[in-house]
Amino acid sequence: MSPQLSSLKNIATRLRIESIRATTAAASGHPTTCMSAADLMAALFFADMRFDPKNPQHPEADRLVMSKGHAAPLLYAMWAEAGAIPRERLTDLRLFTSNLEGHPTPRLPFVDVATGSLGQGLAAGVGCALNARRIGSPYRTYVLMGDGETAEGSVWEAAASAHFFKLDSLCAILDVNALGQSRPTELQHDLETYRVRWSAFGWHVISIDGHDLPQILDAYQKARTIKGQPTAILARTLKGKGVSFTENLPNWHGKPLSKEQMEKAIEELNRQMVPETGGAPKIPAPPPPRPEAAAKNIAPPQFKLGDMVATREAYGSAIAKLGTADPRVVALDADVKNSTFSEKFEAVHPDRFFQFFIAEQVMVGAAMGLAARGAIPFPSTFAAFFTRAADFIRMAAISGVNIKLAGSHAGVSIGEDGPSQMALEDFAMATAQPNFVALYPSDAVCTERLVAEAAAFVGPVYIRTSRPKTPVIYDNNEQFPLGGLKVVRKSEKDVATVIGAGVTLFEALKAHDELKAKGISIRVIDLYSVQPIDAASLIEAGKATNGRLITVEDHYISGGLGDAVARAVAPAGLTVRRMAIPEIPRSGKPDELLDKFGISARHIVNAVTG
Amino acid sequence: MSPQLSSLKNIATRLRIESIRATTAAASGHPTTCMSAADLMAALFFADMRFDPKNPQHPEADRLVMSKGHAAPLLYAMWAEAGAIPRERLTDLRLFTSNLEGHPTPRLPFVDVATGSLGQGLAAGVGCALNARRIGSPYRTYVLMGDGETAEGSVWEAAASAHFFKLDSLCAILDVNALGQSRPTELQHDLETYRVRWSAFGWHVISIDGHDLPQILDAYQKARTIKGQPTAILARTLKGKGVSFTENLPNWHGKPLSKEQMEKAIEELNRQMVPETGGAPKIPAPPPPRPEAAAKNIAPPQFKLGDMVATREAYGSAIAKLGTADPRVVALDADVKNSTFSEKFEAVHPDRFFQFFIAEQVMVGAAMGLAARGAIPFPSTFAAFFTRAADFIRMAAISGVNIKLAGSHAGVSIGEDGPSQMALEDFAMATAQPNFVALYPSDAVCTERLVAEAAAFVGPVYIRTSRPKTPVIYDNNEQFPLGGLKVVRKSEKDVATVIGAGVTLFEALKAHDELKAKGISIRVIDLYSVQPIDAASLIEAGKATNGRLITVEDHYISGGLGDAVARAVAPAGLTVRRMAIPEIPRSGKPDELLDKFGISARHIVNAVTG
Repeated sequence: MSPQLSSLKNIATRLRIESIRATTAAASGHPTTCMSAADLMAALFFADMRFDPKNPQHPEADRLVMSKGHAAPLLYAMWAEAGAIPRERLTDLRLFTSNLEGHPTPRLPFVDVATGSLGQGLAAGVGCALNARRIGSPYRTYVLMGDGETAEGSVWEAAASAHFFKLDSLCAILDVNALGQSRPTELQHDLETYRVRWSAFGWHVISIDGHDLPQILDAYQKARTIKGQPTAILARTLKGKGVSFTENLPNWHGKPLSKEQMEKAIEELNRQMVPETGGAPKIPAPPPPRPEAAAKNIAPPQFKLGDMVATREAYGSAIAKLGTADPRVVALDADVKNSTFSEKFEAVHPDRFFQFFIAEQVMVGAAMGLAARGAIPFPSTFAAFFTRAADFIRMAAISGVNIKLAGSHAGVSIGEDGPSQMALEDFAMATAQPNFVALYPSDAVCTERLVAEAAAFVGPVYIRTSRPKTPVIYDNNEQFPLGGLKVVRKSEKDVATVIGAGVTLFEALKAHDELKAKGISIRVIDLYSVQPIDAASLIEAGKATNGRLITVEDHYISGGLGDAVARAVAPAGLTVRRMAIPEIPRSGKPDELLDKFGISARHIVNAVTG
Repeated sequence: MSPQLSSLKNIATRLRIESIRATTAAASGHPTTCMSAADLMAALFFADMRFDPKNPQHPEADRLVMSKGHAAPLLYAMWAEAGAIPRERLTDLRLFTSNLEGHPTPRLPFVDVATGSLGQGLAAGVGCALNARRIGSPYRTYVLMGDGETAEGSVWEAAASAHFFKLDSLCAILDVNALGQSRPTELQHDLETYRVRWSAFGWHVISIDGHDLPQILDAYQKARTIKGQPTAILARTLKGKGVSFTENLPNWHGKPLSKEQMEKAIEELNRQMVPETGGAPKIPAPPPPRPEAAAKNIAPPQFKLGDMVATREAYGSAIAKLGTADPRVVALDADVKNSTFSEKFEAVHPDRFFQFFIAEQVMVGAAMGLAARGAIPFPSTFAAFFTRAADFIRMAAISGVNIKLAGSHAGVSIGEDGPSQMALEDFAMATAQPNFVALYPSDAVCTERLVAEAAAFVGPVYIRTSRPKTPVIYDNNEQFPLGGLKVVRKSEKDVATVIGAGVTLFEALKAHDELKAKGISIRVIDLYSVQPIDAASLIEAGKATNGRLITVEDHYISGGLGDAVARAVAPAGLTVRRMAIPEIPRSGKPDELLDKFGISARHIVNAVTG
């Protein structure tokens, strides 16, 4: 056995031992899932990848996304083997006091995106690989996937995108161990069907025995030579490999070994150690990092008061302008660029505009990968269709990743297309995540300012825009800090405060004028920042207006502006009257629908006077 | 030309004319999308499908799912041609006063599931086809899909499932018109790559010219003869087919013709009418419907007070029992049946248990199809992973379909697996939909009762269960009507009301006992029905306990129990103190996490006394 092989073989054995030891210490976890992939990972980390164990976030280092997140103990053991974690810490797995969580999160410096919801890693890998292209780096991206998770459609979205982008720096490693959680996988060890599927999606495919180190090394070597298409390495493996009473046996998913079983297993594995004929493998260092070009200043907006501009259109111009100022900004589309106006970005920055066709999951997943590697991605689509990527958004929150989702066509104000195209639960989705910023501009100036604020903030942001044209109401020099609001109408005699945003702000303004004609004054607030929220100003307004706070929103009643305001003012003993879409809506003209579903000026007038 | 061909050709031309006429009248919509599929649909509806235009919901009738929902005008024109809609009503398209919405919804009797969010129809078709198997009917299911929507991963989940279930009664018709919304599709007219992909997923594939009626008829005929696998008909078509200034031209997506263009187009199309040599085609009637076996009574639960039973486990026994009583009940799994305990259903009703492997979108989509055809489906997985199907759940709400989603492993109380496995936004998702029922049982008796209530209710339901074992606290004869709650501790001297459900109910009970030892009484409410909610009882409790309402929940703060209670009591001027998970959590022991994130008994005691 060559020095390299003997060393890798022993590393793989140690990875198995550590995975078993850690999960037994934790009394939970997935040791057998780690054991099937140990040879693949030993060879990848210690004979192929180029990285710096002391600086896992090195911008030119090769990436590994552990898509099968339940193999976390294996990942931790690899980094321990590389020297980034003290080996004795591995048994802290899953402790509240440790960052070695049950599934990997970016609390660890070597994790780019949280995994554990299956089928997401390849999309993140697409993003990492697109970022290499953005910064002109030769770094490679590897994604370790389970066979079971290829049932997720998101995997095939990512596969199609990787092919479309010709991502030859991307390599998927499929650990085909044939056993799912509750039963054998659909295709079990049918590598031929996997080969046909991945080939059909345009990938170069290499099928190997995933426990044969020379075959593994050859596959990684070969993958580096493939140009113009991504590579999938299909590795036939055995779950629980290396221990007689776990290998290829059912009912071991997600089960740690007992202490006695652990000792027996370690004894068996120790007997598999071979004499080493060379030193420990050297991990090649990545090239020195190159600084990114600095962001330039952005000129203020250039709108005229009273001009009619849809916020979705202002969004398009805003990201185009931002992209000129900052090379980290990229835009991602799902074949609606002419509706969201992200085509304005494409027109000036075609090399930083990424088309995912009608596939929102990979669009958001790739944005997560891009963000994890230093880009500032703005994926946009109809707000309703971000629900297609809700689980990716959930994982983006867990990752705390720097993505800026922009959803257009909010609410019933889109009109005739009907409920399937109306986002009425997008704020419920976004604000549920405690670390998400949720923004809702009403005019073009505010939109442009909030896009810049979103880019400057480090963390996940959701921006909601609207379809109808609305008048510009703010001066170009107005500022819109995150967590703020605007009091747009105010007098000493206000009898109530009406809080709107987007199209309903203009209904509130109409109501204000109608009431004024009747001698009744109301305060009107533009709640452009729904999360974080300016609780103090809301409470102040409530107290100044007889405790009467009325929210009006083009969103269902649960999880929107009304709930956000109610949470903010409850500590002051204030309650909120919520005007929102009360039922599943239908097609119709925008004005008809606003009125029918109770959020038009007329209804606001009634709420104030009634 | 044969009598059949001349008749079908003229029908197709009329379908194009009506699609143009309706969208021009509406001044919005997608005429060219209809025109590419007109020949395919004329032949399907008037020379292949077996149905009753007077009774579109006939249980034995063939099904058509219009997955490309923006071709709604075509669908409406087809039903008008069949006599189910007066032709003159077609120009009511998209009016508020008409059920001919911009995208199809089940407000129309011939629509099984709402479409318009692309990539969902095939999953619903899988459900329709599984239902045919359930009731032993030979009816066939057709799904018209756009080429663009095959970028959605959900399509490939459905493709894999249809192959796994050997659904030879399912036929997908791909209208490959090569033009997306904003640009050409990725594969354009590359039918060979489509063929390779669908074949790779186990489908029988027939490639045709989608404007050649004899080829179309042959394909439908051939599809009927294929046994043991579903068929995909790949039809090369031209968007805007039949009109010189729309055919195969870009920038026509989602644009109606002007009145002048319409007149020119209709003139062109009228010139394509051919002499008919026979009468109108006869649509074959389906066989007479057979009644389903009636549901039997269900025996009461059989638990013992104080027994420790996880609600997820009680869920598994409950659906098994329910399945014995009612043949309409089916269970669907995504390879977690041993965690959700749906394996208990499989053990007794293997023929009504459907395995989707790790593919939550097709699981929920198929449930929608099953429900639309008379089954009562219970799809279950980890509650966190229902977010993967959030857009399907949104469309299920628009469809008002009779599905019963059951999500297990809610909240931080799952412990060591970490945040990726913890559902903390599932109620935000479910309660956002105004027609969803959202339930949260705390003990085994309540779980079993609520499962039966969910099945008896007609409409979408979400049930949340927990991982830890909790004591049985209710008598087996206790009833749990939807929209109710249980006051589980009450005295005349209660200083506050604490409202919990699931694991937090037991924290509230602990807090009750600790406070009682200090001479402080609190009221404790089990809010098992979060939506609808018993506002009157909550207000009564609030008023009886100094206006102090405290909610405590294993969910993020937005969109959960606290918001639901706050909405319910706001009209009475009452506010709510919300105790919920305030940040992204992490791995740890369940009790550690409940305490760390502020929802343990200790925190409740502090909230009451502080």
